[in-house]
Amino acid sequence: MTDQPSSGPDGATRARRTTAQNAQLALLLEVASTPKPGNVDREREYPDLRFEQFLAGAVGAHGGFAVAADGEPLGVAFERAVAGMSNQTGGNTQFGAALLLTPLVTAAGQGALDPNRATALVGETTVDDAVGFYRAFDYVDVAVPEPPASMEQLDVRRGGDAEPVLRERGLTLGDVLERSAERDGVAAEMTGGYGWTFELARVLERGDEPVTDRAAAAFLALLAQELDTFVVTQHDRETAYEVRRRANAVIEGEESVYSFAEDLVDRRINPGTTADVVAGALFVALERGLEL
Amino acid sequence: MTDQPSSGPDGATRARRTTAQNAQLALLLEVASTPKPGNVDREREYPDLRFEQFLAGAVGAHGGFAVAADGEPLGVAFERAVAGMSNQTGGNTQFGAALLLTPLVTAAGQGALDPNRATALVGETTVDDAVGFYRAFDYVDVAVPEPPASMEQLDVRRGGDAEPVLRERGLTLGDVLERSAERDGVAAEMTGGYGWTFELARVLERGDEPVTDRAAAAFLALLAQELDTFVVTQHDRETAYEVRRRANAVIEGEESVYSFAEDLVDRRINPGTTADVVAGALFVALERGLEL
Repeated sequence: MTDQPSSGPDGATRARRTTAQNAQLALLLEVASTPKPGNVDREREYPDLRFEQFLAGAVGAHGGFAVAADGEPLGVAFERAVAGMSNQTGGNTQFGAALLLTPLVTAAGQGALDPNRATALVGETTVDDAVGFYRAFDYVDVAVPEPPASMEQLDVRRGGDAEPVLRERGLTLGDVLERSAERDGVAAEMTGGYGWTFELARVLERGDEPVTDRAAAAFLALLAQELDTFVVTQHDRETAYEVRRRANAVIEGEESVYSFAEDLVDRRINPGTTADVVAGALFVALERGLEL
Repeated sequence: MTDQPSSGPDGATRARRTTAQNAQLALLLEVASTPKPGNVDREREYPDLRFEQFLAGAVGAHGGFAVAADGEPLGVAFERAVAGMSNQTGGNTQFGAALLLTPLVTAAGQGALDPNRATALVGETTVDDAVGFYRAFDYVDVAVPEPPASMEQLDVRRGGDAEPVLRERGLTLGDVLERSAERDGVAAEMTGGYGWTFELARVLERGDEPVTDRAAAAFLALLAQELDTFVVTQHDRETAYEVRRRANAVIEGEESVYSFAEDLVDRRINPGTTADVVAGALFVALERGLEL
């Protein structure tokens, strides 16, 4: 829980946000942050993937966060978040962010929002959690890397149909994420100690600009450091390298963030993994008392 | 409830938004709609009243809408919405919108979202509801008209301190709103059959532009028709007439909506009542199945 402003001008005690509401607000603040080159933000959108669809996604995801905070298993909570998030026609708005957030919400619900606890929760998951994770892919199309031929039976795009294979092989959600950590930044973050999430949360806690300005700066900083795996998946490694190089150029003052943003939108290059980590960082900062 | 898209690409049944979630989403879509001259929107904000604070306000208001949909009394539900909404440092983000929405949410919760039912609910309120309404003013400073000297004991800014006077005089929430309907467009709408709210809901249901574009057009159309009473309260009648005249000029193509918007923001003229009605209209349209 957070140190939020707790009383009105006449002393009335304001309602604190719940942990699930902080997760919902993190999704909203993430998409509101601008400029966030290549991604939908409050000033940029695609005709078929619009700002308003992210708002609807955040509204719908809340139910999943609420049960995560109450201690329901990760797979159940995540599937529920996606079932709610996907009730809009834009498709995948916040799939990765909801995945990254769910163990953080569970940890916060246990009063132990720290990186080790969140990654331990991922490690403690069961085969049922893996099944819930696969089922979540039945609600919405998500761009994922082509699996190697040996893994075809475990392609996440099979959704709930993969259940027998998961059960036969005894794969937990933690196992599944470990296997994709090399190619998926969200999985890497979740299984590797949530390093960037908590680092960026500290960045967000500094300064007195509007929070969405701080989040946009954090987004750019991460884009300049880490290859965005969603860009690798949707395009290729070359494109991801280009994005990272140009993010550095923006930070160095060698390119305008606006021309960078316009070019990525024109080419439909969405550094979605970077945005997912920023959403996680916003949640951590809100839980620690970040004021708006 | 709504006819929302109900299944994913692989047939999974998506979670429908609840009535309370539609009310929350209406607040989010309202503030996201742009350009909305004079008001905070996704491209315009004030240093001390920011877009992100409206996001937090919508997140926090949900609890009040949830109990309204479940049939809690209007006063209890509204006070709770404001207790949650005010947990940000911007102050009054959506006080009027939450007030206008609450009877609509109650009516929808009863499966009878129509103008007559919503206004009947206002008419059926009790003294306790009036007390809850007054208490809501303890959470946040709200600009209100100066009451006549004879009404000083009933100045809403007294907040919960007005309870003895309300009880002594036996005033219900409906009575209080009736008395302010002449000077307050939200009260007029609530006691007078929610005419504009349902009219604008029909406007929002037409067209295939993004919903936030339709909402911005609906805002401008109403601004050109009705004097905004919040502008009268914060400034004066002359200013409200000017705003209405210029909204008409924008519709006639005689003034740019952007120069109009910049000028109103510079002079801090916020047609807040008009925005409140648009939020109500968005809720009605969402309940009727408006897709995003």
